[in-house]
Amino acid sequence: MTNVATRFGQRLGLRPERRAEYIRHHERIWPEIEAAIREAGIRNYTIFCRQTGADASQGGDELFGYYEYVGPPAEYAARMRRLAAAPRMREWWDLMEAMQIPHPRRQPGEWWTPMNEVFHQD
Amino acid sequence: MTNVATRFGQRLGLRPERRAEYIRHHERIWPEIEAAIREAGIRNYTIFCRQTGADASQGGDELFGYYEYVGPPAEYAARMRRLAAAPRMREWWDLMEAMQIPHPRRQPGEWWTPMNEVFHQD
Repeated sequence: MTNVATRFGQRLGLRPERRAEYIRHHERIWPEIEAAIREAGIRNYTIFCRQTGADASQGGDELFGYYEYVGPPAEYAARMRRLAAAPRMREWWDLMEAMQIPHPRRQPGEWWTPMNEVFHQD
Repeated sequence: MTNVATRFGQRLGLRPERRAEYIRHHERIWPEIEAAIREAGIRNYTIFCRQTGADASQGGDELFGYYEYVGPPAEYAARMRRLAAAPRMREWWDLMEAMQIPHPRRQPGEWWTPMNEVFHQD
């Protein structure tokens, strides 16, 4: 049985005054983070940004993250837990989270807000 | 020379009271539209939705569209013009646009708002 890719889309805010720094960090992502993402079965991971003109109190810029998970579906949750525990991951997330704006009514333990797939064409 | 896939991310609003209808249309996309998208060189096209709780006057639900273009880069603009002129495309867009909420300060001729890629990992 081959693993079928599952697509994930998620939303987050970004502090506009930290945008340049956020992009710079992602241009030089730490090797440990890149390796952990790959090890987790995450592929074709892209983050998009839209400059809204809103400041942080109004939600800031919009980030959209898209990725595909190519591992066994039953292993996804465990893989994500292992990703969270990977070397330097907490350190990376602490840096990123200081630049980001999560949804004010997010679920406990949630940072990026998941979106629902409503259409797909291969 | 192989064509390199270019990734596109774009944002739009959706009238929450039309959400169910919008999803239903995309579950049964017209064959002419599916064929025109494929012919344009668009692949791996996914639309995500986030229910924000906002009504249409506040921007409504959030739609995010992701796709890859696999044709020659120099042909992209012409391919998109041909897509717009495909059979029943205007009819499909008229139906969809009545359910959607474009950005109030969008560029002339623009409907979906393009986003910038700020990170990618294969």
